[in-house]
Amino acid sequence: MTPDEFREYGHRLIDWIADYRKRVYAGEFPALAQVKYGELSRKLAASPPQEAEPFDAVLRDLENLIVPAISHFQHPGFFAYFPSNSLLASVLGDHVSTGLAQLGLNWASSPALTELEEVTTDWFRQMLGLSAEWRGVIHETASNASLVALLCARERASGRSAAHGGLQGVPSPITVYASEQSHSSIEKAVLLAGFGRDNLRLLPTDRDHALRVDALESALERDLAEGATPGAIVACVGTTGTTAIDPLTRIAASARRHGLWLHVDAAMAGSAMILPECRSLWEGVELADSLVVNPHKWLGAAFDCTTYYVRNPAELVSVMSTNPSYLQTEADGEAKNFRDWGIPLGRRFRALKLWFLIREQGVAGLQARLRRDLANAQWLKQQVDATPGWKRLAPVPFQTVCMRYEPKGLEGEALDRHTLAWCGRINASGRAWLTPAQLDGRWMVRVSIGAEPTERRHVQALWELMRREAESTNRQ
Amino acid sequence: MTPDEFREYGHRLIDWIADYRKRVYAGEFPALAQVKYGELSRKLAASPPQEAEPFDAVLRDLENLIVPAISHFQHPGFFAYFPSNSLLASVLGDHVSTGLAQLGLNWASSPALTELEEVTTDWFRQMLGLSAEWRGVIHETASNASLVALLCARERASGRSAAHGGLQGVPSPITVYASEQSHSSIEKAVLLAGFGRDNLRLLPTDRDHALRVDALESALERDLAEGATPGAIVACVGTTGTTAIDPLTRIAASARRHGLWLHVDAAMAGSAMILPECRSLWEGVELADSLVVNPHKWLGAAFDCTTYYVRNPAELVSVMSTNPSYLQTEADGEAKNFRDWGIPLGRRFRALKLWFLIREQGVAGLQARLRRDLANAQWLKQQVDATPGWKRLAPVPFQTVCMRYEPKGLEGEALDRHTLAWCGRINASGRAWLTPAQLDGRWMVRVSIGAEPTERRHVQALWELMRREAESTNRQ
Repeated sequence: MTPDEFREYGHRLIDWIADYRKRVYAGEFPALAQVKYGELSRKLAASPPQEAEPFDAVLRDLENLIVPAISHFQHPGFFAYFPSNSLLASVLGDHVSTGLAQLGLNWASSPALTELEEVTTDWFRQMLGLSAEWRGVIHETASNASLVALLCARERASGRSAAHGGLQGVPSPITVYASEQSHSSIEKAVLLAGFGRDNLRLLPTDRDHALRVDALESALERDLAEGATPGAIVACVGTTGTTAIDPLTRIAASARRHGLWLHVDAAMAGSAMILPECRSLWEGVELADSLVVNPHKWLGAAFDCTTYYVRNPAELVSVMSTNPSYLQTEADGEAKNFRDWGIPLGRRFRALKLWFLIREQGVAGLQARLRRDLANAQWLKQQVDATPGWKRLAPVPFQTVCMRYEPKGLEGEALDRHTLAWCGRINASGRAWLTPAQLDGRWMVRVSIGAEPTERRHVQALWELMRREAESTNRQ
Repeated sequence: MTPDEFREYGHRLIDWIADYRKRVYAGEFPALAQVKYGELSRKLAASPPQEAEPFDAVLRDLENLIVPAISHFQHPGFFAYFPSNSLLASVLGDHVSTGLAQLGLNWASSPALTELEEVTTDWFRQMLGLSAEWRGVIHETASNASLVALLCARERASGRSAAHGGLQGVPSPITVYASEQSHSSIEKAVLLAGFGRDNLRLLPTDRDHALRVDALESALERDLAEGATPGAIVACVGTTGTTAIDPLTRIAASARRHGLWLHVDAAMAGSAMILPECRSLWEGVELADSLVVNPHKWLGAAFDCTTYYVRNPAELVSVMSTNPSYLQTEADGEAKNFRDWGIPLGRRFRALKLWFLIREQGVAGLQARLRRDLANAQWLKQQVDATPGWKRLAPVPFQTVCMRYEPKGLEGEALDRHTLAWCGRINASGRAWLTPAQLDGRWMVRVSIGAEPTERRHVQALWELMRREAESTNRQ
């Protein structure tokens, strides 16, 4: 494809994307794809074409085959998981990144890639109200960032074991702590880092589903008595289940006392900290060693864009760096090489999409949207609290409301079946998309507000739909 | 930004990217950025804008600030590292991915994302001539894929230690083997996976810089005698230094005998296997457990697009899976959830850029370009071999020619200074971009051919430039 052909097809694709966004914002598609597994695969050629195909054929398949088989995170009825917003200015930033085809291997391979990442992660640090002690880098996802954090914790607790016998050589097992409400990526990172499930303590939570510091202290004492080496604790600001907030200041005190690495997982809720009125919710964050916040969630940077902040970059680099001759340049020593701040060697120019987003929206624009969503969540919370039969299951510090319809006489597994049934009916209607989850052993429904096009009227419509489906399912 | 504003600015950016590509293909920019560290940062605002900025200001900065601070992997004078091609059809596929703003969490969250990835990685498998025993997935980079491979190897060798005490509980150290020419990402993966540097055996190579199987056998015997558990070997098809090829069949025999996981790193050179005439070079690949090939290198998929193939997906999933309630759907069990095939939970719709590329080029189109590059490398090899004073330092099985100009009387560190000097002069000229590297303790120059716009005349021009700079530097 020549640049002029790219121009022609690119214009058509830009129009197509603009139209797609108009259609999705208008709720034209079912929010959750209504297809069966394998339905798309069966329509696709089983083997690659030997000769070039006309590009028009590709574009036709995009509309006719791909679009019917996707779910729509940008739908106004998207209330599932967490928002995965992708504001159009950020989309353009990503288009530029791909068009320029940069590859970050070291600073010299793309000076702008490195320097814009330094500057833009520092902008975002300021927006979050973090001190100048923090240095940021962009990773693929929070799963990757939390794995990096736990690898650094492992190396600190094991006396830099990687340089010697590895974790295989440690004299006593290193233990890791998190609440039982922590994200699955934390458990996964603990296992991948080699600690072993036996050395992960998933601690009980209080009635607000936040980590119990007394349980942490007991676990630490028990482990120390048994000769283990406590290595790290992961605290959550905004858990996935209910957006619970672990008490950072008190956790940090325990961490300091026992020499634990403190990693803060604020992947979703961290974006709320661009609002000064929210910052008391993560008081103590300055006492952490590392922090992850995903601008690709609620904030609206095109996925993938995870920011990872550390207070001691030298410690991070000591764990993650390699320096083969073919990557050395004259700028080493002076320039930052972000390959030493994460797992991959090669890196995309991801800062562009965050830079475009912040400039096109302004801090004030981003703040206004997040405040809209917080207000919508409070509105829904009030409805749930005021409506007989409905039970709210957790505090609403951010934009997620957890609830269940509990008709008289239904409990246990019958209640679970009822909850999953009405939630499934809503998802099958295509009008909204909700994620059920388990809390205290029972299924509930999370209404996670904050898709870009979601206004109050969409939340109102959802609430009406939920009442209708939950209450009528019960009458059947 | 509304869809209509996106349309307006999107058209302008498509034109801008098309023009950028025309300019870079014409050699208008210096191949390697001619800036100093911090030069760009100092021109950027130190703090984010409180209010929205006009989008025109962003576009102006793109042209005036960003472009002067980037190096150009798509330049016809790009002969550095390895090709990082990004063909324009693939760029459009990536644009669509970002525009649709999909997020792969499980199959249901984006059925097309999962199914197109299954289909497209299977197309590429067929193109590589691999048997139907392999199943593919797309990862961010080869560093990530090789880390996943070594984690799986660790779990096999340790009897699924992650489910128990982790690597901390293994009775005898697990050892890993690779050649001293293996990529730095292998050493990094060994350290991150917790094996420890003391348990990594970087084996000597033969005169063609390929792993010596006798050295492998000796190391295995020594380790077994000392009570270690050999766990994995990484074999390279196309090392970074010289594109050397480790003897897979013989290595696989050792691996089978000792129960080692065999991971094949064909990140760059794997693309050559779309040419049937190259496939004898990786004979034995079917005996491996895992394999990484990067379509985002020579083949031309927009970065990032690493394909990772395994023969036993169940074993991969057993190491990488998590299954919290909020990710469960009715399709589980039937549908594939690629989150269990790698480190990240959330995943981009990366298959689109590979699908667009293969369809727009056809297998024949991709083959023709790679054959052009192989022929160009053979031409350069002949020039080097035929020119007094020049020494070729390695075989040329693919598209990289390793060489040094060795004037009479220069050796040791003086020769190193001379090599780095003339190579530095070429890079400073902006006309070409070369990567020096160390081989057998001395600096040499790798000419890695295969940027998309690089034709024979560009290789000829490079050779003239190299001769002029190397021979004239010597006369000074």
